[in-house]
Amino acid sequence: MLVVGELINSSRKIIRENLEGRNEQYFREIAKRQMDAGAHYVDINCSEMADKEKDFVKWLVGTLQEISAPLCIDSPDPAVLEIGLSLLNNGMPMINSITAERSRFKAVLPLVKRYKAKIIALCIDDKGMPVTAGDRLLVARFLVNNLVKEGISIDDIYIDPLVKALSTGDTAGTEVLESIRLIKTEFPEVHVISAISNISFGLPNRKMLNRIFLVQALTVGMDAFIIDPLDERLKGHFIAAKALVGQDRFCKDYIAAHRKGLFNSLAK
Amino acid sequence: MLVVGELINSSRKIIRENLEGRNEQYFREIAKRQMDAGAHYVDINCSEMADKEKDFVKWLVGTLQEISAPLCIDSPDPAVLEIGLSLLNNGMPMINSITAERSRFKAVLPLVKRYKAKIIALCIDDKGMPVTAGDRLLVARFLVNNLVKEGISIDDIYIDPLVKALSTGDTAGTEVLESIRLIKTEFPEVHVISAISNISFGLPNRKMLNRIFLVQALTVGMDAFIIDPLDERLKGHFIAAKALVGQDRFCKDYIAAHRKGLFNSLAK
Repeated sequence: MLVVGELINSSRKIIRENLEGRNEQYFREIAKRQMDAGAHYVDINCSEMADKEKDFVKWLVGTLQEISAPLCIDSPDPAVLEIGLSLLNNGMPMINSITAERSRFKAVLPLVKRYKAKIIALCIDDKGMPVTAGDRLLVARFLVNNLVKEGISIDDIYIDPLVKALSTGDTAGTEVLESIRLIKTEFPEVHVISAISNISFGLPNRKMLNRIFLVQALTVGMDAFIIDPLDERLKGHFIAAKALVGQDRFCKDYIAAHRKGLFNSLAK
Repeated sequence: MLVVGELINSSRKIIRENLEGRNEQYFREIAKRQMDAGAHYVDINCSEMADKEKDFVKWLVGTLQEISAPLCIDSPDPAVLEIGLSLLNNGMPMINSITAERSRFKAVLPLVKRYKAKIIALCIDDKGMPVTAGDRLLVARFLVNNLVKEGISIDDIYIDPLVKALSTGDTAGTEVLESIRLIKTEFPEVHVISAISNISFGLPNRKMLNRIFLVQALTVGMDAFIIDPLDERLKGHFIAAKALVGQDRFCKDYIAAHRKGLFNSLAK
């Protein structure tokens, strides 16, 4: 199971402020805290910084890579991805993301090859975001088959089925859960990843809903998670769910987390 | 989704004490509170009362049936089941339980027919409790096919895959979850039920583990639950998980529970 720390994302106001202030200390600390809490990759996203996106990605990579876990360069702009990737020298990078849209696939594919990166591949094509599980599987199949044909190892591919808000339709959760099962059944070696928090948009108790949906996604086969690893309740659910599906030998991680008090707020 | 309230069970000391004291008020209240909290059936189990089991079942049925939801008569002894069933007159009864053990199947089957009861059928046969999901499916198949052959409606059959403690082996949870999926795939109309709390035996934070396992079981197809409906955190997880798998139109139950404050302790 792979954890990508999501906190360094310019959609968050505090991140934009600290980027503007070029606050090295802040970013080093938030990267380190995410790693200490179990993140295997630290995502960096500056896509809300308009024409300064490239500069900030450059600056962040320079600021973080010596102290951080490998970075996940996150941008819809292939030129920004390339700048970040070209500067990385601490382990295998991760790219967030490629899609099945013709032009984006063509632009990002050479970067995946050149930088030997793990790649997050979103289930979206030129027709837009699929609604049903079956349509997600079709896009996932295109992505996996074409990436593998180009020499990318299936173990480096992370399919993101794309989560829509439950408030937009009662089946938004089911379609995603079923698509995870279908994708893992057809491609047992591919990984499935998501930032699940969209599910709760527009509903009360968002954090709780996100935790429960994470448990559900993990149960049907999701094995990589773009999350806030500092959210202790979320992490508690993750560790407990992992043990319950047999992914924690002798419940060792579960018992260790219990001894550290991780479940104190959950266990009543 | 069907909820069976589990609190009136003589494995609990407080229940044994109040049975011995023939405390009508206590049992009426605990039955009513479970119904108010959403139980469709109230389970009554006096099997720890030794040779007084029959008397207590008789007394409880008399005490509860006028005020209670339909009762679920719970005993390993077919003679006790019959006494309870013969006194019931408030709605369709439920029997807990039949098994695929030759003698028990033969003894309980006539009661299911005579009293037109819903029947909980445990995945256990004369070889004992199955370990793998595949072996559970074999026993479930025997039970469903033989009950249906005898004229029982498939909609009245509740298969219990029987949950073992995760502390006895890392795959205890996975085998149950996979068996639920297999049973519901082969028999979409049959129900799957369980008292999931065995999963956490021998581990810390049992209630939390039970809640998370309930979410997992529900996600893969379990649609009936023998639980403590007064456990608000458990109920919160149940209602949220139900909404997330599209079983709560427009999230109406979820929003109503939110307004009542059900999620207050969970939502941080």
